[in-house]
Amino acid sequence: MAYAFRDRLLHLQDERRSLLCIGLDPDPRRLPPHLTGRFSGVEAAYRFCSDIVDATQHLACAYKINFAFFEAMGSEGIRLLERLIPEIRRETPVIADAKRGDIGNSARMYAEALFERLDVDACTVAPYMGRDSIEPFLAYPGKAAFVLARTSNSGSADFQHLLVDSEPLYSMVARRINEWQREQPGEAGLVVGATDPAAMSRLRAMCPSLPFLIPGVGAQGGDAGAAIAAALTPHGPVVINSSRSILYASAGDDFAAAAGRAAEELRSALQRHRTRV
Amino acid sequence: MAYAFRDRLLHLQDERRSLLCIGLDPDPRRLPPHLTGRFSGVEAAYRFCSDIVDATQHLACAYKINFAFFEAMGSEGIRLLERLIPEIRRETPVIADAKRGDIGNSARMYAEALFERLDVDACTVAPYMGRDSIEPFLAYPGKAAFVLARTSNSGSADFQHLLVDSEPLYSMVARRINEWQREQPGEAGLVVGATDPAAMSRLRAMCPSLPFLIPGVGAQGGDAGAAIAAALTPHGPVVINSSRSILYASAGDDFAAAAGRAAEELRSALQRHRTRV
Repeated sequence: MAYAFRDRLLHLQDERRSLLCIGLDPDPRRLPPHLTGRFSGVEAAYRFCSDIVDATQHLACAYKINFAFFEAMGSEGIRLLERLIPEIRRETPVIADAKRGDIGNSARMYAEALFERLDVDACTVAPYMGRDSIEPFLAYPGKAAFVLARTSNSGSADFQHLLVDSEPLYSMVARRINEWQREQPGEAGLVVGATDPAAMSRLRAMCPSLPFLIPGVGAQGGDAGAAIAAALTPHGPVVINSSRSILYASAGDDFAAAAGRAAEELRSALQRHRTRV
Repeated sequence: MAYAFRDRLLHLQDERRSLLCIGLDPDPRRLPPHLTGRFSGVEAAYRFCSDIVDATQHLACAYKINFAFFEAMGSEGIRLLERLIPEIRRETPVIADAKRGDIGNSARMYAEALFERLDVDACTVAPYMGRDSIEPFLAYPGKAAFVLARTSNSGSADFQHLLVDSEPLYSMVARRINEWQREQPGEAGLVVGATDPAAMSRLRAMCPSLPFLIPGVGAQGGDAGAAIAAALTPHGPVVINSSRSILYASAGDDFAAAAGRAAEELRSALQRHRTRV
């Protein structure tokens, strides 16, 4: 089925009235003491993620898994993902935030790791190595690859804002992705940080139908209302990610209920912005 | 100890008279039938890598592990690395070719995964997200991070060759890395493909003392002699990587002996070029 990722995303965004993607970044230093006291590090992280998902699943259109936090647990962390991802996917799509990028034959193996072995619905990809590093992630019908365009971090300006013939590099990256994806069976999207609404408007004008994965709301200071106003259109979907402000809403044993309240608050705020578009 | 990676590398390059780094990319479709027939996929890959290392260790100054091929085996592939890496490191440094790149707090977790959990000696890092995505990998004294500058693949020209104020992007990336590394306790290097000796000369002139990790010799067609002439200086070390032309020198049960012969041939060719510099 063509556009399986996009269709499922839009269906859940309507059904759950939610543009909210919840980022799973289980920081071992911030897990609740009642979990870390009773379980091994990996098992505590599994229970933390699993409880967060149970408390927020009806409020989220997707979950974004930050691979860094799982890889830091070694092979046990990947085993945790092999257990967690199928559980989440029963109800909600999973985006692997792994930012892979390598030459063609290696990119094919990374795509296999994410789309076949872990069987996630979408992933993030880095553009620096060019077309043959991206296309293997666009070879899977029904799966999506969000390519980094304008990221939300402090260093994003170092290279992404450099001007190439008066066009910022991030804009040139987005333009090429928009061209390349037309010949591919998979679904392309862009990562565009909420911290720069001007970049968001520019990219939406250039790429009217690509889904945007928008990090940088919450702990990173981006304005969700401005991002939605700039990026959401009837044919241009958005997914707004929040991680730390939901996961760590409470440091106590009420963390899951607190995460549910924080997610509901953000979901309904996003929904208010959405209905204004 | 400062510069532990560089010192150990240079010591082995002299002791073994070798600039050769051997890339471990165990492709399940290319493993010898006598291994895949007797062992599970993961165990066959472990024995393949282990036998290659045994047959070539005296000829190599480093091994480069291509993470894509191990991640495609799931958590078992990472467990394989947890077993293989300490075995290799007893004699030879290990470079994790994982090309990670993410915002500051995630980059710290990726660095922890590679430099603490797996305890490799060096890794590769992608530059697109800027300074805060790179510095966590330069926070480990004695460990090195090779940042992608000019890669060897067909898509490398798509973005790396774009001109920013008449300077190619790859050159600007290298210049910034050369600046940023001065304030860091870790050791920076650059990935520069053998397929573009002109880029190599430009980068060596700009970064006289950074080690260059040079892929693209062999299967990708780069000329090792031209690369060494352009990049090797008394203060500027190089590491020349070859993967497929050694690993798959024979498809039969003599694969390890054939890999040893291919590695010896390349080592001695590199050494001839080296002594001409």
